[in-house]
Amino acid sequence: MAKKYDVVIIGSGVVGLSAAIYCRRLGLDIIVIGKESGGTIIKTDIVENYPGFRKISGEGLANQIFKHAKDYDSKIIKDSVIKILWKKKDCFIIQTKKIKYQAKTIIFATGSEWRKLGVKGEKEFENKGVHYCALCDGPLYKNKVVAVVGGGDSAAKEALLLSKYAKKVYVLARHDLKPEPVNMDRIEQEKKIEVIKNIEIKEIKGNKFVNEVILNKKFEGNNILKLDAVFVDIGHIPLSKLAVGIGVKINKKGEIIMDKESKTNICGVWAAGDVTDTKFKQAITGVGEAVKAAYSAYEYVHGDRIICSCVDEN
Amino acid sequence: MAKKYDVVIIGSGVVGLSAAIYCRRLGLDIIVIGKESGGTIIKTDIVENYPGFRKISGEGLANQIFKHAKDYDSKIIKDSVIKILWKKKDCFIIQTKKIKYQAKTIIFATGSEWRKLGVKGEKEFENKGVHYCALCDGPLYKNKVVAVVGGGDSAAKEALLLSKYAKKVYVLARHDLKPEPVNMDRIEQEKKIEVIKNIEIKEIKGNKFVNEVILNKKFEGNNILKLDAVFVDIGHIPLSKLAVGIGVKINKKGEIIMDKESKTNICGVWAAGDVTDTKFKQAITGVGEAVKAAYSAYEYVHGDRIICSCVDEN
Repeated sequence: MAKKYDVVIIGSGVVGLSAAIYCRRLGLDIIVIGKESGGTIIKTDIVENYPGFRKISGEGLANQIFKHAKDYDSKIIKDSVIKILWKKKDCFIIQTKKIKYQAKTIIFATGSEWRKLGVKGEKEFENKGVHYCALCDGPLYKNKVVAVVGGGDSAAKEALLLSKYAKKVYVLARHDLKPEPVNMDRIEQEKKIEVIKNIEIKEIKGNKFVNEVILNKKFEGNNILKLDAVFVDIGHIPLSKLAVGIGVKINKKGEIIMDKESKTNICGVWAAGDVTDTKFKQAITGVGEAVKAAYSAYEYVHGDRIICSCVDEN
Repeated sequence: MAKKYDVVIIGSGVVGLSAAIYCRRLGLDIIVIGKESGGTIIKTDIVENYPGFRKISGEGLANQIFKHAKDYDSKIIKDSVIKILWKKKDCFIIQTKKIKYQAKTIIFATGSEWRKLGVKGEKEFENKGVHYCALCDGPLYKNKVVAVVGGGDSAAKEALLLSKYAKKVYVLARHDLKPEPVNMDRIEQEKKIEVIKNIEIKEIKGNKFVNEVILNKKFEGNNILKLDAVFVDIGHIPLSKLAVGIGVKINKKGEIIMDKESKTNICGVWAAGDVTDTKFKQAITGVGEAVKAAYSAYEYVHGDRIICSCVDEN
């Protein structure tokens, strides 16, 4: 029979790790299961918006929070959860690639993944000129011509980062570019960046590597734009599938619906960070939600309730 | 006519300052009004539970966040708000001791203050043996006998801090001592600390300074306990009075009721941190709420609404 934890935290980004810090401070027996410690923030060049850290790399911040979680002897396992079974109240079976765990409660800190453009050539040229992370792959394009696809703050930040390497950065926005004002100012000051509004990519083409994209309308007299790489930044897909499998409610965007104490519709199940229906998704807001989730789990586990035992699944 | 700000943030603790960081990043014209920059956290000896900072003094963390807010040219004014008038939609008049401000929106980050014991001698001996902050006044009691009144995590932490100075620390709990488990372990390991449960102080007595307290029942055969100081730690009173004055709804504890985007019942008014009805009040949760409040204010100010102009009150 697999060991039964008070809390299984799914996701080992800064949100999951922060939940671990608080769960351990609260004396809970926990395990964190995640593919990659640190999560998506390690792919962010510079973080200037986690209050207290005026300027730190995403990786630096993730490392700090990882060490912080380790200070409290948090058990952090590199693995992927495949399936969750909800046997009965206070008894979840978590099946990973390697092993089964039992849990009284679960905190979902599963985050999100990059949304794909869904055009011809995107899959074919992935990592051959089609990318989703400027920090990871931007340095490949020194003195080259690149485009960022997207209209949000994240797209603006990607473009700013790419302007450090590339000689020209197009921002292709389906409607408008609407980043945080601080980043709009920076975009306007950076001469390498050119924003093209109301435009879409229809196809990505190349030989071995990307060398052009077909646009849905003409830009400077031509609907072909020559370039070396396309960085897609059109949002994220919340990774809520595992949660849905045990009956957790999501909204139309696929985000887990939670209340202000990070509670979902299922007793003993909480959620925090990018996977939730919080409007403004930041590392700091996710971490705050994780702390609330941890405390809610603590109250639940130590509440005046009978924790039923799990059915042996082996 | 006073200048009209997009957002007036009331309270300059880490929560108010974090709201400032994000408001400024979002290009809002703001002012922070508070009595003391940093807020109550500067009275905390060691902060180990703000994810990312494994160990930092409360003052150190507050300073970091203050500098962070200053990086974005946040205007931070040392003053006290006396009254707020809600003239009409998008128009608040904020009257401080010194001046009047106008605001389209308000973020309440007013925090809370220490709850008083309400017994005879408490007021008379304030700062003469009656204290509310071990970090501030603990060092006065080297090798003395002190008591902490309270049963929560904060009381446990105060006792642990006092044990660094005093030769004996009583913890007087009306019912039980129920701190976070991590602090319970520390209490149990510290021989200088003695926890007395189910006990109350009826009176605090002394000459020029406190020298004894009268208990509601006998302890070791006597209802008089000889000691040099009493540190009261029985909770906080949310500072929501100004908010109530403009119609903001509070709960039975006097906490501002808000939703998960930090919105109150009044359009254009948000709240974050210790003044709100969040269950688990931590610096990190308050900061997360502040960020949500800032973003909500940004959306509101830049939304498709007509911001009406204020009536000249001068």
